[in-house]
Amino acid sequence: MATGIVLGDNSYGKAECRLVHVERDPAGHRLTDLSVSVALGGDLAATHYTGDNTAVLPTDTQKNTVYAFARDGVGQIEDFGLRLARHFVHSQPTIHRARITIEQYGWQRNGDHPHSFVRGAPTRTATVTCGGEGEWVVSGVADLTVLNTTESEFHGFIKDRYTTLPETADRILATAVSARWRHGSADNPDWARSHAEAVRHLLDAFADTHSCSLQQTLYAMASRVLEHRPELVEARLSLPNKHHFLLDLSPFGLDNPDAVYHAADRPYGLIEGTAVRAGAAPAGQAW
Amino acid sequence: MATGIVLGDNSYGKAECRLVHVERDPAGHRLTDLSVSVALGGDLAATHYTGDNTAVLPTDTQKNTVYAFARDGVGQIEDFGLRLARHFVHSQPTIHRARITIEQYGWQRNGDHPHSFVRGAPTRTATVTCGGEGEWVVSGVADLTVLNTTESEFHGFIKDRYTTLPETADRILATAVSARWRHGSADNPDWARSHAEAVRHLLDAFADTHSCSLQQTLYAMASRVLEHRPELVEARLSLPNKHHFLLDLSPFGLDNPDAVYHAADRPYGLIEGTAVRAGAAPAGQAW
Amino acid sequence: MATGIVLGDNSYGKAECRLVHVERDPAGHRLTDLSVSVALGGDLAATHYTGDNTAVLPTDTQKNTVYAFARDGVGQIEDFGLRLARHFVHSQPTIHRARITIEQYGWQRNGDHPHSFVRGAPTRTATVTCGGEGEWVVSGVADLTVLNTTESEFHGFIKDRYTTLPETADRILATAVSARWRHGSADNPDWARSHAEAVRHLLDAFADTHSCSLQQTLYAMASRVLEHRPELVEARLSLPNKHHFLLDLSPFGLDNPDAVYHAADRPYGLIEGTAVRAGAAPAGQAW
Amino acid sequence: MATGIVLGDNSYGKAECRLVHVERDPAGHRLTDLSVSVALGGDLAATHYTGDNTAVLPTDTQKNTVYAFARDGVGQIEDFGLRLARHFVHSQPTIHRARITIEQYGWQRNGDHPHSFVRGAPTRTATVTCGGEGEWVVSGVADLTVLNTTESEFHGFIKDRYTTLPETADRILATAVSARWRHGSADNPDWARSHAEAVRHLLDAFADTHSCSLQQTLYAMASRVLEHRPELVEARLSLPNKHHFLLDLSPFGLDNPDAVYHAADRPYGLIEGTAVRAGAAPAGQAW
Repeated sequence: MATGIVLGDNSYGKAECRLVHVERDPAGHRLTDLSVSVALGGDLAATHYTGDNTAVLPTDTQKNTVYAFARDGVGQIEDFGLRLARHFVHSQPTIHRARITIEQYGWQRNGDHPHSFVRGAPTRTATVTCGGEGEWVVSGVADLTVLNTTESEFHGFIKDRYTTLPETADRILATAVSARWRHGSADNPDWARSHAEAVRHLLDAFADTHSCSLQQTLYAMASRVLEHRPELVEARLSLPNKHHFLLDLSPFGLDNPDAVYHAADRPYGLIEGTAVRAGAAPAGQAW
Repeated sequence: MATGIVLGDNSYGKAECRLVHVERDPAGHRLTDLSVSVALGGDLAATHYTGDNTAVLPTDTQKNTVYAFARDGVGQIEDFGLRLARHFVHSQPTIHRARITIEQYGWQRNGDHPHSFVRGAPTRTATVTCGGEGEWVVSGVADLTVLNTTESEFHGFIKDRYTTLPETADRILATAVSARWRHGSADNPDWARSHAEAVRHLLDAFADTHSCSLQQTLYAMASRVLEHRPELVEARLSLPNKHHFLLDLSPFGLDNPDAVYHAADRPYGLIEGTAVRAGAAPAGQAW
Repeated sequence: MATGIVLGDNSYGKAECRLVHVERDPAGHRLTDLSVSVALGGDLAATHYTGDNTAVLPTDTQKNTVYAFARDGVGQIEDFGLRLARHFVHSQPTIHRARITIEQYGWQRNGDHPHSFVRGAPTRTATVTCGGEGEWVVSGVADLTVLNTTESEFHGFIKDRYTTLPETADRILATAVSARWRHGSADNPDWARSHAEAVRHLLDAFADTHSCSLQQTLYAMASRVLEHRPELVEARLSLPNKHHFLLDLSPFGLDNPDAVYHAADRPYGLIEGTAVRAGAAPAGQAW
Repeated sequence: MATGIVLGDNSYGKAECRLVHVERDPAGHRLTDLSVSVALGGDLAATHYTGDNTAVLPTDTQKNTVYAFARDGVGQIEDFGLRLARHFVHSQPTIHRARITIEQYGWQRNGDHPHSFVRGAPTRTATVTCGGEGEWVVSGVADLTVLNTTESEFHGFIKDRYTTLPETADRILATAVSARWRHGSADNPDWARSHAEAVRHLLDAFADTHSCSLQQTLYAMASRVLEHRPELVEARLSLPNKHHFLLDLSPFGLDNPDAVYHAADRPYGLIEGTAVRAGAAPAGQAW
């Protein structure tokens, strides 16, 4: 241990346990496909300073626990995260904080076949955190790429020495939505419906908003979710602006009436923002 | 130019032109999202041996051509590929062979909103080759991940000194389908329907086949497409065997009645095979 | 603007501007290859609530600024980040906070040729944050994968119902280092040397530490950097435990004397931790 | 089995076995880090048509074989591939063809520490094919990104209606080299030296060639290898043209004296070509 140098923030765990559960209902199998990550905190100074592992629950054991807890079914990922997080904190005196992060991959039934499935987007996510001071549940969505072909403007912005962008009254607006929303409570009788509705409101708000900036669209999406879902208190979105540039076809003797675009990779705009319900419980260690 | 060393096979072109086309029908916009790659061959010895570019149509010009040709609409990707490939071969005396490879990304309408879209799998593909001797069209699909929870067995295989795999009468079968199928002709009045039906037959065959090996499933899928689509003469599939291992929960005092699996990354099986219609026109330079 | 719902944390900017600069010194060209990301904060409520962009410096302008500022050379990436961050905050009354994140890709000279280069790992990183309250510089390294073939043990850990991992007195220890370290000041006469020495101390500590846990190795690495570099006040490391499993070759009549391993992909351990100099200036908005 | 539809080309095997071998020499450990893929062909109609696996050596057994064969050391990857390929073909009457594809990841010693390593580029590759008619060995390199800051021109090319590219007498030339070269024989007393020299000649030729097209550079690289390495008979290169566009800084009142570039992602040029030694043994099933 070095003099005058101390251990700061730390956590450890097993990441990306790829768990698939099959419920073999004769009326039609049900498939749950997850990546589960565990991160624990607690009395971990000794292992950092001296390699004394007395307080360490190995990441291998965490992985085993994830698989064993799935034996009787996973259920909703928020509940599965709570079961796991509470287990680690309550069963181990040295573990004071557990965060379970889950990605659930989308699968649809292959036609009407009872045990065949096709994978599809988007990905449903949950992050559950349990500590001495509370429990927090954050749900979310990833892999949700959306595009509006019109009703997006961008003008009235600052011009300085480095400005070359022309103002536009009509452009393509496209983004890959990463959204997470915090629940006001760790109890929810219907996580599945809460999630489905939140995603639907995100999609509706994206489509319905006549946008003067991606920030405006972001706030419209985040606030729409909170307006319609009283169980939610905060929504955070990260929206890359996937630029589509109208091509100049005039060198080839052609006009381009908002028809042909180049979809660029990099650089891209990145807009991140949060909507919060006034008076909501504080976020604690939720994020 | 080195003595006794000669130029062999070669091609050049612009890869992954990201082209988005919007058809602004007031009844509902239509979105076409492509990655277009061009590869040309011909009288290219001089540029290799001495850097004399007299016979070279620059890849930048190829890119411009892709975008310009989209001005009046893309249509079906097989047709778009044929238009581009024929253009390069017919307009340039030094270019004798053109291959156009297109990926079309899937987009669905966002609800019933007329100009908002959500991206989804799978990806439709086409490879069109035009040379002095003929024209070939290959259609295909990628990003199509499927899983059967039962009706997959694997037994009766060779055992040798290195065998440890137990035989099984019931396992998960999962794969990410990469499939391509060759058309007997470069004329097709309905490429869209041909493609949709081919994909449907692949999915049906995957679900319907009681599988004793992934090879059996592969051949069932490939041959089903040819049986039902007379315009097709050959189907090639590449199927990674995405292993799902049943977990041993007995150390934790639990059984595992075909419920909890680990989805492994690597290594994976890789099964590749082809079904061919007897008496079909030879493949030429199609692949 | 929704009633009772307010804008929370937010930022926006252009991400991953791929900037390459060539200094054409006749004695040997010098190559700088960067990905530069800008994130700004400030008086941005209006654009979120109503799409009023009066306070918005477009991300396109940010990109132009990055390229224009490189005209006379990039220099050390910490300095380049400071120049850019200060420019945005000082030139725009509505912008109160700027964070510049830079990745610098490694290139070595190709032999002794004066203008030919070969790309290599690792990647040097810098994150510079300027706000009303201060300036913070964080340097770092990524793409640095290391492995010790011995001198790694793991035992003495908690055993519970879900434990199956045997204790080990000798294992492979491998990780992909993501490390960042905070400077006590935004002034440094020799960022390049500071960086090179920090990386060297990380590598030495990884090799020299007889490890009883990856946490012990992490703390040894982080604290070693602080011990030797007085200009640094905090070091944060994120270390995936890239598991190498000794294979059981006994079914084949073979022993395995710590020779043949399977390198697994997922799941993996993930160890994150920080070492802090006692009495250091607080981190403010550095991270 | 469908009427009039027959099985065509096919192969199967285990892909990407991640094998790490440690040779524990007290004077300094030696590390070998591989991804090994096996693909077999033979009497495989039955498993495709009916699921009869009598002729199938499972991919799981192939994986076990890869690990077991590493027990006494891997040696040079060409030799390891030959040992494995010959084993599959000679030990199994139903297997008539085996292709072993190996990637070897680069590791350097961490300072002078005897058992600590740092991973680096490039990746060494080998593809070994054994069939009834012969044996073929192809060595190669991947992950080798190179850049020349000058001595690259491009002009004198075809101009047509779609040409907008200006001619240039000086540009950046950058590419990620994928190169493979075929040996005239499956015997080589020093594969390691052969490989090291081939890579050195590729790098030298890239640096030394004053380039009027990437094709010219490609042929110079491929033919240089054959000129200097008599054991090689053919070299195939695939070179993406990683475009670096000189930025127009004039809107900001700045010139740009070949100093500031944007490194683009897509689209990119893709140049593929082969050099062959006149009179060389035919390629057979090598590729």
